[in-house]
Amino acid sequence: MSPEERRAFQDYYPDSTKHCYGCGSRNPDGYRIQSFAEGDEAVCRFTPEPFHTAVPGAVYGGLIASLIDCHGTGTAAWEAYRAVDRPMDSDPPLRFVTGSLRVSYRKPTPLGVELVLRARATEVGDRKVRVAVQVEAGGVVTAEGEVVAVRIPEAWLASLASGSGP
Amino acid sequence: MSPEERRAFQDYYPDSTKHCYGCGSRNPDGYRIQSFAEGDEAVCRFTPEPFHTAVPGAVYGGLIASLIDCHGTGTAAWEAYRAVDRPMDSDPPLRFVTGSLRVSYRKPTPLGVELVLRARATEVGDRKVRVAVQVEAGGVVTAEGEVVAVRIPEAWLASLASGSGP
Repeated sequence: MSPEERRAFQDYYPDSTKHCYGCGSRNPDGYRIQSFAEGDEAVCRFTPEPFHTAVPGAVYGGLIASLIDCHGTGTAAWEAYRAVDRPMDSDPPLRFVTGSLRVSYRKPTPLGVELVLRARATEVGDRKVRVAVQVEAGGVVTAEGEVVAVRIPEAWLASLASGSGP
Repeated sequence: MSPEERRAFQDYYPDSTKHCYGCGSRNPDGYRIQSFAEGDEAVCRFTPEPFHTAVPGAVYGGLIASLIDCHGTGTAAWEAYRAVDRPMDSDPPLRFVTGSLRVSYRKPTPLGVELVLRARATEVGDRKVRVAVQVEAGGVVTAEGEVVAVRIPEAWLASLASGSGP
């Protein structure tokens, strides 16, 4: 695996947008999830904490939604760069936020094992990328989701970089 | 307001199902959100922490999804008891988990203010309740969601009560 492949998608985000509770490397209180390319698939691995409970023994659905959300927007960025054949560290940055999120909980997701999220884009537009995500626990798909990710306009990115807020 | 109205929906959950990271009173690490009746509406108020960031200044979408999720299943229980004209502390308990979740993020939700979630059932079945939720920040609707809540079967509730897991 090349060094390029080992760098997480989130490492390429502009510094001014690295504060996300789900995936920001500059948020010490957050989950700091990371997404990586594995062939044509984007993969995120995350082991919930024992207190991330739904009913006892099962993973909290809100955490599963959070993982799908952040892995979805990360995958959207990766797919957007791929679509225009640009490396993720090239300018202008392609950074996405969530327009909508859908999660289907197929069965209880067991606590105590690593979760593997696998994602692919199903639609790549200039401003909008649709991403399908599957959540696996012990090789079994327990939840499926879809993220419609919307590209952050350059003016908004500029205002974040200057600290004037969203 | 009567004492009945001041008790949160989540206070009526069976003790064996009070461990949810989003709304369980027995989860000291969680959000412990609470839902209350206000007339024909179910309302949840929650002020995110400063570190619950999406991009700076905005609330993390995964937290918004989590609030919609737990307020949705709480509202489903409340509506299910109302539909059969039973108080929430009567047996058998009507306790719901999330079958599916959908969130539309209309605009950035500002950090630093109390969020108000307003919910109503749009469909009440014996095993399934559909709940529509709006998220307001400073009186402005910033996100909308829908939860399809599925009633926990009595055999599953019994296994949770006996500690044999989900």
